[in-house]
Amino acid sequence: MEQNKKELSRILAKFKGKEKALQYYLAGFADGESSFSVAIIKHPTLALGWMINPCFQVYQHEKHREILEVFKFVFNEGSIYRKSGVHPVLNYSINSMRGIREKVIPFFEKHPLIVKEETFKTFCAIVEAMERKEHLTIQGFKKVVDMAYAMNQQGKGRKHSKEEIFATLPKT
Amino acid sequence: MEQNKKELSRILAKFKGKEKALQYYLAGFADGESSFSVAIIKHPTLALGWMINPCFQVYQHEKHREILEVFKFVFNEGSIYRKSGVHPVLNYSINSMRGIREKVIPFFEKHPLIVKEETFKTFCAIVEAMERKEHLTIQGFKKVVDMAYAMNQQGKGRKHSKEEIFATLPKT
Repeated sequence: MEQNKKELSRILAKFKGKEKALQYYLAGFADGESSFSVAIIKHPTLALGWMINPCFQVYQHEKHREILEVFKFVFNEGSIYRKSGVHPVLNYSINSMRGIREKVIPFFEKHPLIVKEETFKTFCAIVEAMERKEHLTIQGFKKVVDMAYAMNQQGKGRKHSKEEIFATLPKT
Repeated sequence: MEQNKKELSRILAKFKGKEKALQYYLAGFADGESSFSVAIIKHPTLALGWMINPCFQVYQHEKHREILEVFKFVFNEGSIYRKSGVHPVLNYSINSMRGIREKVIPFFEKHPLIVKEETFKTFCAIVEAMERKEHLTIQGFKKVVDMAYAMNQQGKGRKHSKEEIFATLPKT
């Protein structure tokens, strides 16, 4: 813990007076090593039976925890935890709607992405639709799920297919 | 080809007036998605029988060639080619000593790395030793190979072990 703080201070000192440079560096790093994703999770007590969960994550091997500490410091939000699985990978994530709306989206609007530009646009469109509460209607929910599944490899690796999810919705 | 140029122009336009920001962005991207490596390649016509080949590379799925085009434009050096293998991955690389000395090293000295900081230091030390022609003596060659093998996972994935290489050297 003490070591993490020391390492963070060392890095911040290196970028002292160049805080903007550090922010653009982080945008570039995130463009390669992060993900913007929207999980669709079964949640029986919600009206439509599913929770929509936008999330920003950065991954790194545990031996370079320092870079995740820098993200956490600059965003002043989110948490770092070890991913389950055999690989010693750490995960920095922000998944609260407030954190995403107030920290993640403004950051990447200001410091543009190149590779993930389109994914980020879709991510923002989903968050905006959710803020307008569109996802609480069947039609809006389907629209959001469609966008979410279009983001990362067309839903590859998802637990449920779109058809499975849509089949559970109340009939209109 | 035309499409690549158009896409590159679009990205450069996005960063117009913010060229420094783009450079820091690229440093961050490279910190996640590039490698600094030093290949040791059998080369029977060289005095010690081995060639030392420092190389800077950035990888990307072919559907995001644009980011490699940005690197190539900013460094004004190097080339993009498809990696052999099943995955559709492109590789942007600079492997001439001149390119590394005049483009790669000054760039990352100016725009610091966080995750690859130590690897880059070792990479620079190797290039400097080679410029002093230290690698042309047996002792200097061994020092450079030691450093090279310490860089990326202690020589994991290398074709030859250090012991194999050292065993072929002329006896002193």
